[in-house]
Amino acid sequence: MTCIFCAIVAGDLPATVIAETDHTLAFMDINPATRGHALVIPKKHAADLMEIDEDDLARCTALAKQIARRAIDRLDADGVNLVNACGSAAWQTVFHFHIHVVPRYEGNDGLELPWIPTPGDPEVIAQAAAELR
Amino acid sequence: MTCIFCAIVAGDLPATVIAETDHTLAFMDINPATRGHALVIPKKHAADLMEIDEDDLARCTALAKQIARRAIDRLDADGVNLVNACGSAAWQTVFHFHIHVVPRYEGNDGLELPWIPTPGDPEVIAQAAAELR
Repeated sequence: MTCIFCAIVAGDLPATVIAETDHTLAFMDINPATRGHALVIPKKHAADLMEIDEDDLARCTALAKQIARRAIDRLDADGVNLVNACGSAAWQTVFHFHIHVVPRYEGNDGLELPWIPTPGDPEVIAQAAAELR
Repeated sequence: MTCIFCAIVAGDLPATVIAETDHTLAFMDINPATRGHALVIPKKHAADLMEIDEDDLARCTALAKQIARRAIDRLDADGVNLVNACGSAAWQTVFHFHIHVVPRYEGNDGLELPWIPTPGDPEVIAQAAAELR
């Protein structure tokens, strides 16, 4: 099975590319959450956050920051979300690492935070922390 | 006005710390979206993605990846989301850069993707791309 993002990197599938470096590519999401929604990927295939090497992760994040800056400066976005989905349980659908750069527009973009921040049970938090340490 | 994350770094406010390096700190979110929800921050104050320097951004992302790995290995998470909110229009509420590390659990964690992926208008996408290039 061909990876569609590898096919985009190879030029075998079309994409609306907005930035490219030796190691990374940024192009428009065809299913945009908001105006200007873009994706940043490493050219070298890595399925997800667990697989990507540290250098490519830093490069992708740095490019995502640049695209975010442009969204604010040029699209008049009021803010930006960076989102990475690792695993199908986390909404990942294309298994080539990508960072969503989602420009946000005050009051009218229709997005809702995927969780409602409410205080957690301190005991449950402490137990999880003990395992994460 | 004191920055609450700077106060945590300084030890003036309590936090359930799970990892620390010379430049970064990871601690539990007190309003967790799911079990194991943690935050990764730079010790040096930066209000948001626009302000953080490239080195600290890379360090925070690398630590977020490590915490994600632990969530999968030790909390039996099935996936992980990394989320950064830049600006109040993008749900940022604490103005010290942070990456949310949100462990995800197949089928039962109640989170919903903040947007419904639907094809965008190619013309609108092309216009936004022209401005982002």
